Formats: sequence, C-alpha cells, structure tokens
Amino acid sequence: MPPPHGVRWKWAPAARAESVGSTAEFDLIERIRRRAATRDDVVLGIGDDAAILQPPPGQQLVVAMDTLNTGVHFPEETAPADIGWKALAVNLSDLAAMGAMPAWCTLSLSLPHSDAAWVDAFLDGFLGLAQMHGVALVGGDTTRGPLSVSVTVHGFVAPGLALRRDAARVGDEVWVSGTVGDAAGALAQWTSGQPVASGLRDRLDRPTPRVALGRALVGLVHACIDISDGLAADLAHVAQASGVSIDVHAPALPASEALVKAFDVPRRMHLQATGGDDYELCFTAPGASRAALVRIASEMAIPLTSIGTVTAATAQLRLLDAAGRPWVPSRAGYEHFSG
Amino acid sequence: MPPPHGVRWKWAPAARAESVGSTAEFDLIERIRRRAATRDDVVLGIGDDAAILQPPPGQQLVVAMDTLNTGVHFPEETAPADIGWKALAVNLSDLAAMGAMPAWCTLSLSLPHSDAAWVDAFLDGFLGLAQMHGVALVGGDTTRGPLSVSVTVHGFVAPGLALRRDAARVGDEVWVSGTVGDAAGALAQWTSGQPVASGLRDRLDRPTPRVALGRALVGLVHACIDISDGLAADLAHVAQASGVSIDVHAPALPASEALVKAFDVPRRMHLQATGGDDYELCFTAPGASRAALVRIASEMAIPLTSIGTVTAATAQLRLLDAAGRPWVPSRAGYEHFSG
Repeated sequence: MPPPHGVRWKWAPAARAESVGSTAEFDLIERIRRRAATRDDVVLGIGDDAAILQPPPGQQLVVAMDTLNTGVHFPEETAPADIGWKALAVNLSDLAAMGAMPAWCTLSLSLPHSDAAWVDAFLDGFLGLAQMHGVALVGGDTTRGPLSVSVTVHGFVAPGLALRRDAARVGDEVWVSGTVGDAAGALAQWTSGQPVASGLRDRLDRPTPRVALGRALVGLVHACIDISDGLAADLAHVAQASGVSIDVHAPALPASEALVKAFDVPRRMHLQATGGDDYELCFTAPGASRAALVRIASEMAIPLTSIGTVTAATAQLRLLDAAGRPWVPSRAGYEHFSG
Repeated sequence: MPPPHGVRWKWAPAARAESVGSTAEFDLIERIRRRAATRDDVVLGIGDDAAILQPPPGQQLVVAMDTLNTGVHFPEETAPADIGWKALAVNLSDLAAMGAMPAWCTLSLSLPHSDAAWVDAFLDGFLGLAQMHGVALVGGDTTRGPLSVSVTVHGFVAPGLALRRDAARVGDEVWVSGTVGDAAGALAQWTSGQPVASGLRDRLDRPTPRVALGRALVGLVHACIDISDGLAADLAHVAQASGVSIDVHAPALPASEALVKAFDVPRRMHLQATGGDDYELCFTAPGASRAALVRIASEMAIPLTSIGTVTAATAQLRLLDAAGRPWVPSRAGYEHFSG
C-alpha cells in the first residue's frame, strides 16, 4: 500500500523534505514561481498562504474553474506543453464566452512524481498562453497524485455587460466563430488508430480561446457560450437557460478544409454538430448587429457564420437539414436535442 | 484501454448523455446546484460559463487554491462528508492566515463514477462548512477521474492589512492557536493500525479553519501562517520570507489532553513540531499586542500560546529544548531548520 497520507508541497519556495519526497519537488515549485509573470494589480503573488489582488474599481469579477484529467480530457500521450496550453485555454475560453477581460489565474497541478523537465515543458505551454493574454499566475498548489490540472481564471467585465446563456431573444440570429468539429475529428482519427491530420490535431491540442472576439461582442450580441461539449449540447444550454427555441441549419455549420478532406459528409456533419473541444464562441444577436459582426469578422480575421435562428419560446434546440426538416446526428444520445 | 478522451460534464444543468455516461451524472450536478447557497454579491452563480461576482469597493481580493487527492491528502477510507469538509477547510484556513473575510468558492470534483449518495454526503460536509462561514459556492466543474477535490476560495481584506509571511519583526513574540500535533497523532495511530483516539481523529478529518481568529488578528500581529505542513516547516517559511531568525521553545508547544495521553513525550514533541494538517494559526506579534491577544483568546475560547521569539535577521528557525539548547526532532528531514 502506498503511504496513505502525505503533506502538500506548496508554492512557498522554502525547502522541506519530510514525507513528500525529494527536494527536486521544491526545485520545480521554485521553478514555477520564478517563471510566473506578474501585473500591477497583483499585490502579492505566489509564495504566501493566498494571493492578494486589487480588482479594478467599478468592475464585476468573472471566475471560471475547469479541470483536465489525463486519459479523460486529453490522451495520455499528449505533450506536456500542449497539456499546459489546453488547461489554461479551456478556462480562458470560459471568460471569452462571458465577454470578460482575463487578469489572473491559479494552478493546481497533481503529478505522480516530480519531473522538472515535464514541468518546464508544461510551463512553456501554460505560461506562453498566459503571456499572450496578459494573465498573471498568482498561486495554487502542487500535489502528488494522478496527472491532473485544475485552473481557476479571473477576469473583469463592466457591470451588467457580461454575455450570459440566458439572454437569447426570439428573432435573434445564431452565429458561430471559426470552424467546428475539428477537435472531434482529430480525436476520432486518433481513437481509430489513423494518422491524425495536422490541421485537426492542432485544434485538439492547442485550442484558441476567443478572448478578443468575446470582448468585441459585448454590447452587440445577446447570449453567448463557448463550444466545449459540442455545438448541439452547448446551444441546448442556451435554449434552456433563455427559455427559447433555437433552430440550427446543420448544413450551414462551418467546416475547415482539413475536416472536409478527412471525413465523408454524414460523419463530418455529425462531428460538427456534436463534437466537443472546439472552444469557438456561439452566440445569438439581433439583426441590427449583423453589419458590425461582419466588420469584426473581417478586422479580426475570424470567420463568423450565421447558422440558425431563435424562433419561439419553448426551450429546445432543433437541428435542421438543408430542406429545413429536423435532422438527428447519426450517433445515439442526442434525441432530446431534436424537435 | 478506457476511453482516451471524454467530454466534461459541466455545471450547466441541461442534460447531455453523450460519451460521458449516464444521466445520473447530470442529476448529481443539478443536485449540487440546487443545494448551493448564494449571497447578495453573487450576480450569477452556477450554471453559465463562469460566475459573475461583485467585489466590495475599496477591498483587496484574497485568493487561495488547494487540492486534496485520495490516498495522498486523506486516507481512502475517509467518509465523503469529511472529505467535503476538509477540502473547504484547508482553503478557508489559507484565507484565515491572511486575515481575510471569506466570500465565494469554486469546486472542481473528479470522481471515478457517478454516485449520488456519495456526492450528497460530500455536500453535507462541504456546504455545511460553507454555510458556517457565509461562503457561496459559485461555480466549478465535475469530471471523471481518480477522486480529487480542488477548491478555490475568495475573500476580502482592507488594502494593506492582510497578514503576510514576510512581516515578522525582530522582537516579536511567536504565538500559536489551539493545540498542535493532533492530526499527525491521529495519522500515526491510523498508519500503525492502532485504534485512533476520537479527539485526534476529529482534528484530522474535520479541521477547524480559524477564520474569526484571523480576522481578529488584523492590525494586532505582524506575520501569520496556517499550520498545514507542520509548525517547524511553516514557521521556517515565515523566517525565510521575513528575513529573520525564529527561536521556538519546543516544550512550550501546546498539546491536547488526547495527544498527551496517546504518546510518550519524545514522540509527542516530534508530532507537535513537525506534524501537518492542524490548521492552527501561527503568528508573530509585538509585545504591545499581548494584552489584546489574551483578551481575544478568552473571548473566542481559543487558546493562544506564546511559543518563541523573533530574534535576529538571519532567516532561520531554531527549535529549543527546555534548557534553551537547540533541539532536533528525532525523525530525519529537519536538519536544515535547526541552527
């Protein structure tokens, strides 16, 4: 039996070797601390019992927390830099979906054993993405356990302006950014033992949180969500939270060239409608916002595609085929999303 | 091989059955959402991509994040209610050590399989403690994986008044709340297969975060830390962060009756000096604060014991015996903390 109980090795850099293992573990904590960037609004970062932060006056705080477990949320063979990137990306995507400006994060990293090279590579991905968004890593802990990464992100939004799931209105158009189904396509190829197309694999391992887009949508759109569980599942959340019905025109779902090349039409449409892990933004907007959305798409070089409409107040999602008939993705499990 | 990749089942109560398992999993998420209390400053709690919170004007935000893994931070046989309690308690203890007022928390719960009864019992402990401290659970996620609980807590403190590790001053007295070594005593008994004394087991399974005490210490004390890794290790952090030397009079360390009864003197003193998981507060204070501290101890019915002094600016911790000679706990691993 392994030792039933250990003592956490925390951020504080002072070395302590009792019971939890080697001083190498403390070396890697100090390694994290040294590499973490700071910001002017971080009063006290890594190294105390808690971080002290100065929220900007007059703003609301937006907080999201997501965990990635090995073998569940990423294949065990995933490169540590990709795990680091993705652990932060999925959290930043939640802030993007709220229209929030990211500021701080905390990281809880469980590792089966101390491995400085692994942590270095993990930090390359994690802190690389943090730097791109001006996010400071301000605390957390590192513990022994099966590989698992928990991240909490903090951002700001002006009062009342956050993009929520419950704000869709009858008459809105439904939009999605980028292309959908790529991450699920990569996973399908990987699971079946095929070579994974590089354009798809990148979408699975290195998702792009649409932070700037989310900020740009504030004031223009009504409801917004990020696609983490699959477009149909996530839009069903919007329909339910908003008490509306949403019709999605399945053939309108945007596909990447790589996805079109890799799958036949029925399989591709299934991946686009139900595949998770894309981290694109899906939102509803009044017709009056259309011109502004087209301009944003052009300026940011992010495709924005109109895929459906908010039709009536019955809290459901319908997927429609090219002829406007209800369409059910071929795999089981989505019956309750169709009309 | 288990499925290499799954889709997270998130807080949103809308059911989705694809790939992650049964609808029971969503029942339990909805169960968590229904039981979570709220507060006036929670603009939007569980159920969207992120929580929206309204920090009080003019306050600093204090954030801590700790993870507990099964078999590492608690014995696998631990009751789910105790796991829930402890996961929040260790985090609230970090806020207590900063002198912060707790407000919000997020919870990331990894479970090997959906088990509504287990989650109910877990919530009894977690939300029971949250309610005692007026803390609202505002978000997080639930995922499949080995049993692991990550919690992020948020609290407030007036600008510049947080209790930090780096604030000890030469001439301060060193104090500790309650008694130390009890949790480690329980663990020692459990590990060796003995019956665990009930007075000790409660300290291991249901630690009391000293939140009100931490608040009361603001303005009276200099440095403060909570004892999670063991008094010697944690005070060494204070010595290092503050650039001071600390002498602790080992025989002065307060012991519970249960600990005195269960262990001989050398073993007990070792547990008191090095045992983790007590979550008492250890702090340094000027002599001018002594009368106020004695009054606080009386009013709160929490023993506060003077155990040492801050002596010189050399960033070390010395443990001293009754005769004032350096004393080294008998077990290996603490050489670098003695003088």
